[in-house]
Amino acid sequence: MIDFITFCDYTGTFAFAISGIRLASAKQFDWFGAYVVGIVTAVGGGTVRDILLNATPFWMEQPSYLIVSGLALLFVIAFRKYVIRLNNTFFIFDAIGLGLFVIVGVVKTLDYGFPMWVAIVMGTITGSFGGMMRDILINEEPLIFRKDIYALACVFGGVAYYGCTLLSLPSALAQFISAVSVFIIRILAVKYHISVPVLKGEE
Amino acid sequence: MIDFITFCDYTGTFAFAISGIRLASAKQFDWFGAYVVGIVTAVGGGTVRDILLNATPFWMEQPSYLIVSGLALLFVIAFRKYVIRLNNTFFIFDAIGLGLFVIVGVVKTLDYGFPMWVAIVMGTITGSFGGMMRDILINEEPLIFRKDIYALACVFGGVAYYGCTLLSLPSALAQFISAVSVFIIRILAVKYHISVPVLKGEE
Amino acid sequence: MIDFITFCDYTGTFAFAISGIRLASAKQFDWFGAYVVGIVTAVGGGTVRDILLNATPFWMEQPSYLIVSGLALLFVIAFRKYVIRLNNTFFIFDAIGLGLFVIVGVVKTLDYGFPMWVAIVMGTITGSFGGMMRDILINEEPLIFRKDIYALACVFGGVAYYGCTLLSLPSALAQFISAVSVFIIRILAVKYHISVPVLKGEE
Repeated sequence: MIDFITFCDYTGTFAFAISGIRLASAKQFDWFGAYVVGIVTAVGGGTVRDILLNATPFWMEQPSYLIVSGLALLFVIAFRKYVIRLNNTFFIFDAIGLGLFVIVGVVKTLDYGFPMWVAIVMGTITGSFGGMMRDILINEEPLIFRKDIYALACVFGGVAYYGCTLLSLPSALAQFISAVSVFIIRILAVKYHISVPVLKGEE
Repeated sequence: MIDFITFCDYTGTFAFAISGIRLASAKQFDWFGAYVVGIVTAVGGGTVRDILLNATPFWMEQPSYLIVSGLALLFVIAFRKYVIRLNNTFFIFDAIGLGLFVIVGVVKTLDYGFPMWVAIVMGTITGSFGGMMRDILINEEPLIFRKDIYALACVFGGVAYYGCTLLSLPSALAQFISAVSVFIIRILAVKYHISVPVLKGEE
Repeated sequence: MIDFITFCDYTGTFAFAISGIRLASAKQFDWFGAYVVGIVTAVGGGTVRDILLNATPFWMEQPSYLIVSGLALLFVIAFRKYVIRLNNTFFIFDAIGLGLFVIVGVVKTLDYGFPMWVAIVMGTITGSFGGMMRDILINEEPLIFRKDIYALACVFGGVAYYGCTLLSLPSALAQFISAVSVFIIRILAVKYHISVPVLKGEE
């Protein structure tokens, strides 16, 4: 089971880093700048979570996240012309990563002794703040607050986990169900263009 | 007294969240995105303060801040057409909240054993960084550094508290005086268009 | 030796603050806003490092960094017309500060018991995140990821320190060599317009 989780974790890190690197490249960032944006996209959400929990940021405990982000950079450089054709693949990877990131955030927060509502918030931060920080770095309004259901899918994942614990399901099953919920909500939201209503301005 | 302080705290949280939600709505954020911007505006300053003090962020200890921000979202959705007529009311609420937030930041920092100058900085961060983070999220230059006296009113509040301690006034009175100072400075600055001089560029 | 290091530290703080204040003035920030941008530029990188290391932010332990940033503000206000002629001087000061900041970040991280690769990352964050936060505040894409070699010079400095430890050089010598490396790389990169290749977009 550990192996499968690690696989999903690296898959998600790779997909998140790719999204940062591609958006940075559209803004004429240099290779190193694109690498930094890729890392921030991949580990930014978990880092904010760990700072709020007063935990050591997870990526400082082993170099694999920076290495996977570096592979994402090499991948974009090497296959620049073909990357656009892989959009659907990246989207699936991103959704897998999102499901896992949310659950990691929820479980870690509960382990630190916080109540469930804090865990749901932290799961959402873990899943969505990396993309938000990416958009701040490339000087755009955060897309995750305006496109399809993204941050809200993270909230649903956390609530699903809570529902599973109410039913006294074993933790591993609860984690699986809620990660898959996030994944399915993302797929459905994009396939059927389901989005949260826009808040109309005053004029 | 606790009740009155709690009332001011929720009033300020509500007003700060409203300002974030309204600006997000002008940028076509969806409901959930606007909610996030509202929360960040309301609790962002105190969160930065708590991270710098190595304290558990205050909003993680009870859900009321997220609930009040949610009420602010519902309020804006329900009374969209009338919100603009309430500008003066929101401004008063915002000034009340600012005074309280500054004092909470000053007192908490002193409680953590830091000297007065750090407390003044933390009071200013508590009062002004939420608005700064709001403007970063909606991709605008921070208004608080360019409009009337806002961040500087926070500094004055901290200095007023320091003056009160030099006079050996009781802590509750010192807090009241400095919160009211912030409130009055804000009202006067906006009423009489008092602002800090603009730093002219080199050309 | 302490005196020389302190001198370099204040020189770097002054130069970093000047760069923030000048860019803020080009955006019509008021004096206080420009001061905040100056402080963030000067201490932002080290603050992120200290938060990640779970250390008390260095500028909260003595007021000198805020004072030096205040002097930078007064300098820009007083000598506004002549500041542009001092560009080369500021550049040298900035490069001196960068070298020192990187080493301070590397050494502090090792002192906290983290491995060398984390120290190199933290040295880079210490040197480059202040400028990144400055550009976010003034609502521009971060220049350090698009202009000459800046963040990468910080990485080289950290790697140079690692090389020196592999050769078992005394720590003071290793610090000197790597700080000078950063300084020389910056000078050469700007003089000969050496930059990291831009990552071309997909279209």
